[in-house]
Amino acid sequence: MDILISNGIILPMNVEDGDDICFSGFAGIDGNRISFVSRSPEDAELFLEKHPDADRIDATGKIVMPGLINTHTHVAMALLRGVSDDVPLMEWLEQHIWPIEGKMGYQEVYDGARLGILEMLMGGTTTFVDMYPYEEAVAQAAESAGIRSVVSPCPMDFRMEHFENDWRQVQKRFKGSELVTMWMGPHSIYTLSGKNLQRSISLSEELGVGSHIHLSETQTEQDNSMAQHGMSPTEYLEKEGLFRTRTLAAHCVVMSDHDIEILAGNGVSVAHNPQSNMKLASGIAPVKKMLDAGINVSIGTDGASSNNDLDMWEEMRTASLLQKVSTLDPCAIPAYTALQMATINGAKAIGREGELGVIAAGALADVILVDIEKPHLYPHTNLISELVYSTHASDVDTVIVNGTIVVKNRKCLTMNAQEVCSTAQKHIDSLLNK
Amino acid sequence: MDILISNGIILPMNVEDGDDICFSGFAGIDGNRISFVSRSPEDAELFLEKHPDADRIDATGKIVMPGLINTHTHVAMALLRGVSDDVPLMEWLEQHIWPIEGKMGYQEVYDGARLGILEMLMGGTTTFVDMYPYEEAVAQAAESAGIRSVVSPCPMDFRMEHFENDWRQVQKRFKGSELVTMWMGPHSIYTLSGKNLQRSISLSEELGVGSHIHLSETQTEQDNSMAQHGMSPTEYLEKEGLFRTRTLAAHCVVMSDHDIEILAGNGVSVAHNPQSNMKLASGIAPVKKMLDAGINVSIGTDGASSNNDLDMWEEMRTASLLQKVSTLDPCAIPAYTALQMATINGAKAIGREGELGVIAAGALADVILVDIEKPHLYPHTNLISELVYSTHASDVDTVIVNGTIVVKNRKCLTMNAQEVCSTAQKHIDSLLNK
Repeated sequence: MDILISNGIILPMNVEDGDDICFSGFAGIDGNRISFVSRSPEDAELFLEKHPDADRIDATGKIVMPGLINTHTHVAMALLRGVSDDVPLMEWLEQHIWPIEGKMGYQEVYDGARLGILEMLMGGTTTFVDMYPYEEAVAQAAESAGIRSVVSPCPMDFRMEHFENDWRQVQKRFKGSELVTMWMGPHSIYTLSGKNLQRSISLSEELGVGSHIHLSETQTEQDNSMAQHGMSPTEYLEKEGLFRTRTLAAHCVVMSDHDIEILAGNGVSVAHNPQSNMKLASGIAPVKKMLDAGINVSIGTDGASSNNDLDMWEEMRTASLLQKVSTLDPCAIPAYTALQMATINGAKAIGREGELGVIAAGALADVILVDIEKPHLYPHTNLISELVYSTHASDVDTVIVNGTIVVKNRKCLTMNAQEVCSTAQKHIDSLLNK
Repeated sequence: MDILISNGIILPMNVEDGDDICFSGFAGIDGNRISFVSRSPEDAELFLEKHPDADRIDATGKIVMPGLINTHTHVAMALLRGVSDDVPLMEWLEQHIWPIEGKMGYQEVYDGARLGILEMLMGGTTTFVDMYPYEEAVAQAAESAGIRSVVSPCPMDFRMEHFENDWRQVQKRFKGSELVTMWMGPHSIYTLSGKNLQRSISLSEELGVGSHIHLSETQTEQDNSMAQHGMSPTEYLEKEGLFRTRTLAAHCVVMSDHDIEILAGNGVSVAHNPQSNMKLASGIAPVKKMLDAGINVSIGTDGASSNNDLDMWEEMRTASLLQKVSTLDPCAIPAYTALQMATINGAKAIGREGELGVIAAGALADVILVDIEKPHLYPHTNLISELVYSTHASDVDTVIVNGTIVVKNRKCLTMNAQEVCSTAQKHIDSLLNK
């Protein structure tokens, strides 16, 4: 179904310097792509002449902007929301998270992913980059829910056999999918031998796909890398050749100036996860420094069990506020930069620049409408700062992915919310032996 | 109207060690006070026998908890939301905020306060502590909207005459009000001469009211105090005798161990405003250290122009996450502590311990219902961490203040939201000469 969006405040996210950042106007969707964006009602009429049956959305009082791109999550961990909080990292992993994850199979991952995807769609996230065991289940959940995904089957030394099966299945079932893209997800330097890392790199090169990795999340990772390899995790990965593949590195909290140079020089993108880094007390990533060095920094939520939600609005806001206070510079990461990180930088991180993260003719139709007729968003003086500093996930009214309306008037059309929630509850009760 | 709340998950916030933090049950409201809280349906039936006309609220799938207490704001600054962001502090104040504030009179403050109060009520805040010129207007807006307030007319050297008039008017109009309490609001040591500070202290003592002050918000304040007085702001205020009055100190970012000892020794409460401190790049308050020293630390949002909202859920979450990352301790400020800061600690800060911030027989009926039947709050494994790490202002369904339902099914019953928003828009457009 073609769609005409009328009378909205269009926020294209790709304007040239000097142009208006946003303007009142119209946008038309033809199939899965945006066919025009314009200030002019005449262009809307022309579109309707060609597409008389188009679905018409009145966007009065709403911002029309690109869907948000969550560049690092483990979406199925929505199932583990709240099972362990406020404890030391290793206790969290070893005593709480890993024992439950060890009991999770295909079905648990599928239903956990459905819960996380429902939350993301309702909050305006239209693309997510995932890494987890059973990415086949995540891809299945994502495609059926109508969200765009990059799934990264995840080699780890203790489950290489599972990985080999997982990527083959994803490849087999989702090759050519409009919504699902597969990358390799070499988990981290501390869970992968050199040999298994090389296996991941070879596969990335062979299949022509990118690599999604955890990098320098904690001081412990840095210290162990120095002890084991005599170099930082970033230096080690450069030496091993990972950066020959398009790489998206999550976290990058503990980074020397040399590490930053390496990422910049190799065109590595970063997924910054501020709330997870805060909650797990990992530290504060030098985001301003990385951006200043020319690194493409995007935003992720990480899994819901270390956040505890998949809310990109909070993540944008926190990214901005945390850099301001940690650099003692109130000008650090201004609102528009945070919005770029969550949209066009995300698109660039997954190699979809120009196609995603923008409202522009020819781009894929991943579009959200944000209702700004709310007391906490009044008065309207600066829409960009309103979006970053005051908007909530619950202000997202309509979500379109690949030209299909998946959320309308805050109702998800592709999933039964009650059923998704109660299924997740049953799984976690069973996993916790309740 | 009396009220019976049935089948909710009651979160009393005043349980003894070893007791359940929350439980399924019932609560009755008789006039403006809670008359019973119980697990037993029989108590509910007894209540209905005595109060057959009671309004009945079915709280199935909802948490029943004390309304949140925002212990530091300038509520009328909701009018200035978004007018200036991402600029250095002095430029923000001198070039943007102060010139507009200089043009704001009684009506602008009144209508700005209405906007902020509407936002707070819709998000479950039932009491706020304010400081601003024209507190008479704030008190009027608050009382008519049905929210509880502590207003602090605000002596500052350049407007002492205004202050003298303001506190007299508040005293005259709101003495004996059930909802409005007046405190003194000596603005800060950098805006008050010793003489005017003494005037504020004398008035506090004469009227038997507390003092609400900005304290050690920035390194500049600390440096100037050292230069001018040869001591820290806290040491100076102790010497001047402010702490003889019940004191609520906002911010407390730059604090020595000696400063912390002084506050603890004098029973001074702190209002922690993490998002404002981050956005203005003021620094990170040593909240864990202050709590460990026995200081009663509560939570405030500060004004909307430095936040940019009045959302206590985000503030709780940020308070917890920011201490974890700044102390590198994931156990710092666990979820329940953050909830205490926003409820019972707030009550204690304004001298209303036992009366506010708890769900208990005899306490004032300031009660909120939070709808947890939402995808971003599933599965339910730990309700406390759900409230602090995942709940949004928009999950608040019902709000009762002083026994009166002011928000029901997310609709404010005491204000016309559309009118409040459009009035605020007209004012700011006029103030900005648009």
